[in-house]
Amino acid sequence: MILNRPELQFYKAKIEEALDTYLPSSSCAPEIIHAAMRYSVCGGGKRIRGVLTLVACDVAGGRWEDALPAACAVEMIHAYSLIHDDLPCMDDDELRRGKPTNHRVFGEAIALLAGDALLTQGIVTMLDHIPVGLEQAYYQALRELVQASSTQGMIGGQVLDLAAEGKQLTLDALKLIYRWKTGALIRAALRMGGLIGRAEPQVLEALTRYGEALGLAFQITDDLLDLQADQEILGKTVGSDLKKQKATYPAVVGIDEAHRLATEEINRACAALAPLGESGKVLIALAEAVLHRDH
Amino acid sequence: MILNRPELQFYKAKIEEALDTYLPSSSCAPEIIHAAMRYSVCGGGKRIRGVLTLVACDVAGGRWEDALPAACAVEMIHAYSLIHDDLPCMDDDELRRGKPTNHRVFGEAIALLAGDALLTQGIVTMLDHIPVGLEQAYYQALRELVQASSTQGMIGGQVLDLAAEGKQLTLDALKLIYRWKTGALIRAALRMGGLIGRAEPQVLEALTRYGEALGLAFQITDDLLDLQADQEILGKTVGSDLKKQKATYPAVVGIDEAHRLATEEINRACAALAPLGESGKVLIALAEAVLHRDH
Repeated sequence: MILNRPELQFYKAKIEEALDTYLPSSSCAPEIIHAAMRYSVCGGGKRIRGVLTLVACDVAGGRWEDALPAACAVEMIHAYSLIHDDLPCMDDDELRRGKPTNHRVFGEAIALLAGDALLTQGIVTMLDHIPVGLEQAYYQALRELVQASSTQGMIGGQVLDLAAEGKQLTLDALKLIYRWKTGALIRAALRMGGLIGRAEPQVLEALTRYGEALGLAFQITDDLLDLQADQEILGKTVGSDLKKQKATYPAVVGIDEAHRLATEEINRACAALAPLGESGKVLIALAEAVLHRDH
Repeated sequence: MILNRPELQFYKAKIEEALDTYLPSSSCAPEIIHAAMRYSVCGGGKRIRGVLTLVACDVAGGRWEDALPAACAVEMIHAYSLIHDDLPCMDDDELRRGKPTNHRVFGEAIALLAGDALLTQGIVTMLDHIPVGLEQAYYQALRELVQASSTQGMIGGQVLDLAAEGKQLTLDALKLIYRWKTGALIRAALRMGGLIGRAEPQVLEALTRYGEALGLAFQITDDLLDLQADQEILGKTVGSDLKKQKATYPAVVGIDEAHRLATEEINRACAALAPLGESGKVLIALAEAVLHRDH
């Protein structure tokens, strides 16, 4: 269990509740698109990104409630990226979070539009719930979220990832892809919480460094799980990276070295939290759980 | 020519220039995605939505320069919607603005991501260029743009449009689809200009009513062009609505009645501008040109 502390489970529950509120109801027209959005957002998911936003806000000295729309926005944007990633023209995956992928249930056209709509809804959610007195920090958080989702972030990483299929990459080239593809959004999740919590500069810096290392470790463990996980628990097809000849850490440096590098990044993440003292403990626990996750 | 006044041509030129600045360069990594974005945004287009934003800002008494990022954002979002609309799983179109559609040149995966990236870049563009002193109005404009692009706007219209293929609709049902699919973004283009220009309430109201009628007329003339236009001039495949059994005004009420209803909406649009007096003239000229457009 990654969310291995009661406060992390509490934040996850708050995010689930809020997502249900912020997403249009499946009985609201056009019903099919809202059903498709909810299918991918509400049907499970670890909520790590959203929880990181809330913890970061709390650690920074803010009220987690103020960061709740941002936490939900990052989850919606993550879900949009998964839906588009799973489409036949991209990774062509059939299983996600233990269920058929969005386009297998709703068809490609609705899945495409559900992804578009979740990106849009994430931003609407933030713009519709601006905490009074925090406007400047909040807009800065929104800006970082959208930039992290751009071609200089998540989308750029997906482009490079597609281009790398079947190719032999150096570790540095792969690291850059992971920084963008996975790291940017995790980093933004933490920085959003920090900004909305009005973090002191050294706290924001610590959260940023933690996010960068955690994001990289998270993607390396994702690679390892694709090779070694129990498909039932993982909830997606095991071995699909190999089948698609994806560039991955295990493919470039081997399984043992990949595990060692993930551990190194987790240590780096935890070390970055030193300036936070006691209040960083929950983030350290979360980082350690990432290393041992089974899904 | 729809932009039948020198000031409209001037605004169009300013938008072209600014789009070139706001879009990442094709030599910036990952090059392919930026080339794909630019292919669809910079390769022609009437720029009606962006021009409406600048004219509305001017009419409201603001500086058009302040609305330039919003004008470019609405053009990027429009381009994103066209790229996704043209994909094989949606309308499966081969020709757009006289050139092969994005996925025919860059492949489906890059076209999908280029659409995603243009939505993202439109919002980044607005958030990166906030005019000092206009923050509140500007954020309100951004909010309206994103809402107009949501499932209660453009995306919702596309969903209903897909669902309507091969079905016989009532005129009221079709009008609702058009209000969302085409009208919402045109309405938002005008309201953004009005908001950033700090329009008086009755001016903003006039711009809104104008936008709603113009948006509907614009989509009806689109239907008529699909039946009657010269493909060379139109720049997209003629007769494709018929082939896909799309619900259109001519299909529901016939060509003559569709033309009459478009004229009625244009008259309604112009009448809505009465409170603007002399300063509404350029918008009236534009509305009249929409009725007689050939592409």
